[in-house]
Amino acid sequence: MFSSVGSTLLYCAPVVSAVCVFVGGMGSENTLVRLLKWVTLFTVLFFIGFIIGWCARPVTTHHEEPDHLQEFLDEIHAENIKQHLRKFTRLPHLAGTQQNLRLAEQIRDEWLAFGLDSAELVWYDVLLSYPNRTHPNYISIVDQHGDEMFNSSLSEPVPEGYEHVTDIVPPYSAFSAQGRPQGDLVYVNYGRTEDFFKLEREMGINCTGKIVIARYGKIFRGNKVKNAVLAGAKGIILYSDPADYCAQGVEPYPAGWNLPGGGAQRGNVLNLNGAGDPLTPGYPAKEYTYRSKLKEGAGLPKIPVHPIGYHDAVHLLKNMGGASPPPDWRGALNVSYRIGPGFTDDFILNKVRMNIHTYNQVTRIYNVIGRIRGAREPDRCVILGGHRDAWVFGAIDPVSGAAVVHETVRAAGALRQRGWRPRRSLIFASWDAEEFGLQGSTEWAEENAIMLQERAVAYINADSAIEGMYTLRVDCTPSLHTLVYDITKLVMSPEEGEERISLYESWHKRDNWTNNRDAPRISKLGSGSDFEAYFIRLGITSGRARYTKNRKTERYSSYPVYHSVYETFELVERFYDPSFQRLEAVGRVRAGLVFRLADALIIPLDCKEYARSLTQYANTIQQLALEHPEAIQRYGVTFEGLFSAVDNFTQAAADFHQRLDKLDTKDVLAVRMLNDQLMYLERAFIDPLGLPGRPFYRHVVFAPSSHNKYAGESFPGIYDALFDIENAADPDRAWDEVKRQISIATVTVNSAANTLHPVA
Amino acid sequence: MFSSVGSTLLYCAPVVSAVCVFVGGMGSENTLVRLLKWVTLFTVLFFIGFIIGWCARPVTTHHEEPDHLQEFLDEIHAENIKQHLRKFTRLPHLAGTQQNLRLAEQIRDEWLAFGLDSAELVWYDVLLSYPNRTHPNYISIVDQHGDEMFNSSLSEPVPEGYEHVTDIVPPYSAFSAQGRPQGDLVYVNYGRTEDFFKLEREMGINCTGKIVIARYGKIFRGNKVKNAVLAGAKGIILYSDPADYCAQGVEPYPAGWNLPGGGAQRGNVLNLNGAGDPLTPGYPAKEYTYRSKLKEGAGLPKIPVHPIGYHDAVHLLKNMGGASPPPDWRGALNVSYRIGPGFTDDFILNKVRMNIHTYNQVTRIYNVIGRIRGAREPDRCVILGGHRDAWVFGAIDPVSGAAVVHETVRAAGALRQRGWRPRRSLIFASWDAEEFGLQGSTEWAEENAIMLQERAVAYINADSAIEGMYTLRVDCTPSLHTLVYDITKLVMSPEEGEERISLYESWHKRDNWTNNRDAPRISKLGSGSDFEAYFIRLGITSGRARYTKNRKTERYSSYPVYHSVYETFELVERFYDPSFQRLEAVGRVRAGLVFRLADALIIPLDCKEYARSLTQYANTIQQLALEHPEAIQRYGVTFEGLFSAVDNFTQAAADFHQRLDKLDTKDVLAVRMLNDQLMYLERAFIDPLGLPGRPFYRHVVFAPSSHNKYAGESFPGIYDALFDIENAADPDRAWDEVKRQISIATVTVNSAANTLHPVA
Repeated sequence: MFSSVGSTLLYCAPVVSAVCVFVGGMGSENTLVRLLKWVTLFTVLFFIGFIIGWCARPVTTHHEEPDHLQEFLDEIHAENIKQHLRKFTRLPHLAGTQQNLRLAEQIRDEWLAFGLDSAELVWYDVLLSYPNRTHPNYISIVDQHGDEMFNSSLSEPVPEGYEHVTDIVPPYSAFSAQGRPQGDLVYVNYGRTEDFFKLEREMGINCTGKIVIARYGKIFRGNKVKNAVLAGAKGIILYSDPADYCAQGVEPYPAGWNLPGGGAQRGNVLNLNGAGDPLTPGYPAKEYTYRSKLKEGAGLPKIPVHPIGYHDAVHLLKNMGGASPPPDWRGALNVSYRIGPGFTDDFILNKVRMNIHTYNQVTRIYNVIGRIRGAREPDRCVILGGHRDAWVFGAIDPVSGAAVVHETVRAAGALRQRGWRPRRSLIFASWDAEEFGLQGSTEWAEENAIMLQERAVAYINADSAIEGMYTLRVDCTPSLHTLVYDITKLVMSPEEGEERISLYESWHKRDNWTNNRDAPRISKLGSGSDFEAYFIRLGITSGRARYTKNRKTERYSSYPVYHSVYETFELVERFYDPSFQRLEAVGRVRAGLVFRLADALIIPLDCKEYARSLTQYANTIQQLALEHPEAIQRYGVTFEGLFSAVDNFTQAAADFHQRLDKLDTKDVLAVRMLNDQLMYLERAFIDPLGLPGRPFYRHVVFAPSSHNKYAGESFPGIYDALFDIENAADPDRAWDEVKRQISIATVTVNSAANTLHPVA
Repeated sequence: MFSSVGSTLLYCAPVVSAVCVFVGGMGSENTLVRLLKWVTLFTVLFFIGFIIGWCARPVTTHHEEPDHLQEFLDEIHAENIKQHLRKFTRLPHLAGTQQNLRLAEQIRDEWLAFGLDSAELVWYDVLLSYPNRTHPNYISIVDQHGDEMFNSSLSEPVPEGYEHVTDIVPPYSAFSAQGRPQGDLVYVNYGRTEDFFKLEREMGINCTGKIVIARYGKIFRGNKVKNAVLAGAKGIILYSDPADYCAQGVEPYPAGWNLPGGGAQRGNVLNLNGAGDPLTPGYPAKEYTYRSKLKEGAGLPKIPVHPIGYHDAVHLLKNMGGASPPPDWRGALNVSYRIGPGFTDDFILNKVRMNIHTYNQVTRIYNVIGRIRGAREPDRCVILGGHRDAWVFGAIDPVSGAAVVHETVRAAGALRQRGWRPRRSLIFASWDAEEFGLQGSTEWAEENAIMLQERAVAYINADSAIEGMYTLRVDCTPSLHTLVYDITKLVMSPEEGEERISLYESWHKRDNWTNNRDAPRISKLGSGSDFEAYFIRLGITSGRARYTKNRKTERYSSYPVYHSVYETFELVERFYDPSFQRLEAVGRVRAGLVFRLADALIIPLDCKEYARSLTQYANTIQQLALEHPEAIQRYGVTFEGLFSAVDNFTQAAADFHQRLDKLDTKDVLAVRMLNDQLMYLERAFIDPLGLPGRPFYRHVVFAPSSHNKYAGESFPGIYDALFDIENAADPDRAWDEVKRQISIATVTVNSAANTLHPVA
């Protein structure tokens, strides 16, 4: 304001001089001329005053703030990320342990020191699961006398440099039932629904009363366990086959980044479907919260489960009898992969026995929640959240992500200390107990559900920032597509030899989304990380970004040493990202997303991209249905309503963006109104009734199928109903369910279109 | 703006004259003095210009608009309401009939003519239920040969002046099952849960296979039917006992306003619990919506049901045998009220047979939706809605309400045509098929659920505007208390002899809320009218107002001719409101509420009143639990968490209102932020998981108990759990449920407190 007064005064100076000269020559004229001159003088002086007065008056509309995005991105440094990773991976940080609490306190303290407005620990008392220290878990082969002929290893060989570390939890399946079931082994391939169908229908093998052995990969391990229970198995062994956990031409750790034979994959085997703490589904696990009886807990498996490495697996598989496997059931071990049940003739009296003493215990966990209050819209928030708890050192999962969050917080704090505040509030979260079923993030979402539903603009997830060395991988909701492309154009490629091209260009070149358009591939969100409660339950705009492998050439699941003791700092430093440029690039993408979402005057979401994706999903799901042309005809299944709803949405999105383009950005209320519509766009796809049998999966457009928690399906209700057609006892009812699900999708998409209109 | 420039110029005129005089006398002074004078001249002229410039600059903050509330209230006239009532009650307007469609079209056309921005019909295809025209429903007493000794009347005697009217639907129970069950009669008093307990436990009477007869009153008729089904009855007869449907010293209609002996109460007997259309629960009944099979429809009774008047009831009751009734089971008929089963000795071979041919049919219904776009916040809306469909003429239910809505729309249109627009959008609704289970309002809520959840500020219900001749009755959410008091202070009492006092004073005098405070009584919302989906499912701030009887002296249920053919224009004109001043007063209250909610800069809701009510409810529900002191002790039931949550809410509400008091009302964004919090206050009490077994009743603080849809209970989850304690098969489980419900209430109240904080 004052500078504008100053400059106006400056412009006035010559005018004032001219007036002085003008008045000075007035003595000799006649009265009329003098009067005219006086009037002119008054007029000029009046206007000078008027103009200055006009300009000096403060006007309370929006001031375009300088954009600090590039400053923010530049503040994120590879070297810092490396130091954070080093610091956070010295010790194991299993959820519910003292070490993880201490790490939480350290993070809180550092976040405060970085310059956040607040940072605090938020606790919940949730059900966790640990191996019994005095009765280790293992698998045996026993002879007819019950004597143990072979026992699986009790732990993984500890990597060099970590021999002194205590409290390394041995490989186990968290929340396994206890027990010592004994029986014949059946090999069930990946343990998928279709694998069990093949076993039962094509091979005529009944798993009832058997112990099944499944290889890890393809689907979430909890789904394997659920399928085994449905098939009647009394125990399930999970193992890592080299076909799925070793890359070709790569050495086992520490010489390379492959899984060693003694390594095994930890992990929970729950089927929570978004419930969070198994004893308090839907509600935060606080001191005032009612807890279910353990036997009624959500998602707990009824049978013992245990994971082993491939060295141990060879012992179990090598003498198996029974039918030969279908070709695609063979892994890469030097065994026959016979199906069983039981061993070959020479070993036919031998049985497999599981010895599982894992116990469940209500345990206190701690999230760290940090905040920067928004300058203009403190009541709106953008969340950057990732977990802190690790199975052991967790250098990839989660610390590669947590280190990036830490650096982002540091960068935000640095800007904050230079006087910057984002337009909207920023919330940073270090979640606990993600590995035990996304519990920290889900409980916090449950405690803050109403607030989040009303106020959250977006949630950006920050689990592992790297799982390969090839290019960027982004999973997000369609409305974020455009922002993701925009941000990646501002970040440089981290690859050697690509110093002059942007991350966008590098990504585009390496993973073109060819079948959709000429742009880098972006995938749907599935589940298996902390965005779940925010996206699938609450309908908050969400996305995640990480560095990944080459999807066309690298066929192994996840990354080889996933959830093993070999996820060390050295693994990342030596193999995955020696320069830490990849983590820096991922960090800048995540930070850039959060920054723009929190600071842009107009929330940078693209409804037209959502419309485009919906059209595509409607086509895809119709194609899936058309695989049953006769039934479609017979039951009168039609997608007409859904396509018409998608058209409505497409039109509404186009109209909305037209209004947005014409928006007077100085009109504070008009900006807020459109921002509200953008913020609530994702919310519109939530059905409060939830998906069938899954009350906490409420997103009608995106959720994992019931058959694999990891992968996101579009229109999951319809997808699952079609999936179930194959084995429906009552096809009339099954097709009715397909029709019902199409109708729900139609109602929902229409309803979402409705929310894009300007008038209530 | 221009007027302020003008007035500034006016003030400047003498200054300018003075300057002229001053300059005119400058010729003879020395240079320094002249210079000083010139500087002074410049300065003065500059400041004149500056001040005018300052004032002329438009400032884009809020302008206090003149308040048109009184103008709006004054626009609502008794005489107009009378004319609307007359016009809308000439013919029956049963939902699903041509006559009701024509009325919808008429209302739409008149609303457009009044000056609304838009008015349209919105249709749904829902399940309705009608008597079979060729096979009338009736009840018989049959002898041992099956011959009919007595048949109940097929219709009510038509009131004078309406003899020519066709299409008067005879008394029936909508959605009754079809059938001709025959058996012994059991008198079950009001058919409440406690009545059936008394029968089964104290009197040892088993209703299995019996036909039960219940008197109307105390609870919703659908609950009576549900209880009869649970008790094993194969049919239920509902009748109006003079004890419950005749006021003392009043003549039957047309001489007075009591129910004649030939009159009977129509009504639906569903147990929908908020589902709306029974075939599309949760979703709008459009052409693209999946419909359940009829046998899976929501809330449909499994047994025949039929209503009769007290003349017919005498025939059924007079010869009943069995035990004598408890004293409070006796009605006012000249019969013994013996319980049965069956008749006395002389008639012991006689049975009762129901002949019910009512059928269900998917039928198109039409809401009328009218809108005035908001001037400043078009994306926010306030809804005034009431139903149009009537069982017959419906002069009280609903037309006394619909006439008031019509007059309110006329008044709003009149202001609109004079240039006024409300700050927020106004939506007026004429709902269809309320009598068939609140279907029109629920389907529209289902179609617009997401929009409403995000944008609706309040819903004001407009069912029957009068049910007595004594004083005002208001049921609303606590945050509306203060506004209700404020508005009623602006409306004059409609009572003769009270021409100089306000409605507030009259109401206060007649119905003091003594046990809470010295103020007029305001009650909780129950259900049984169209606010249900808006309030109990969606959590939108809601209220209703009507004129009522003297609750202390008039003990009859509802009003005597409720749902009979005798609800005529003449009933209202002769007895209930001859001057139409009462309807005018109610109209002004409803209109005033809607006006202030839509037009006030700050949404006039009071969080502190909510806190006050929560405290009271927590005390009440604790008292109810303390009726079981031993169990409370044994099971460790505590309300500590709930009280602490209520304290949190109370503190948050106080802080919120402090911020509100200090709010700079010129700060457009700050105003909107606080308004958002006010708008969403009620939403915070919604639990998406719903109450146990009632997914569409989601309000944790207010819902009807499972045992009576009409009456609102506070903390209904806890209330129902405690209600069920008495007859719990497994007390451990029952008390666990009490604890679970207390925990849910605690979580919810804490969560609501959370939303009152300023920062996300």
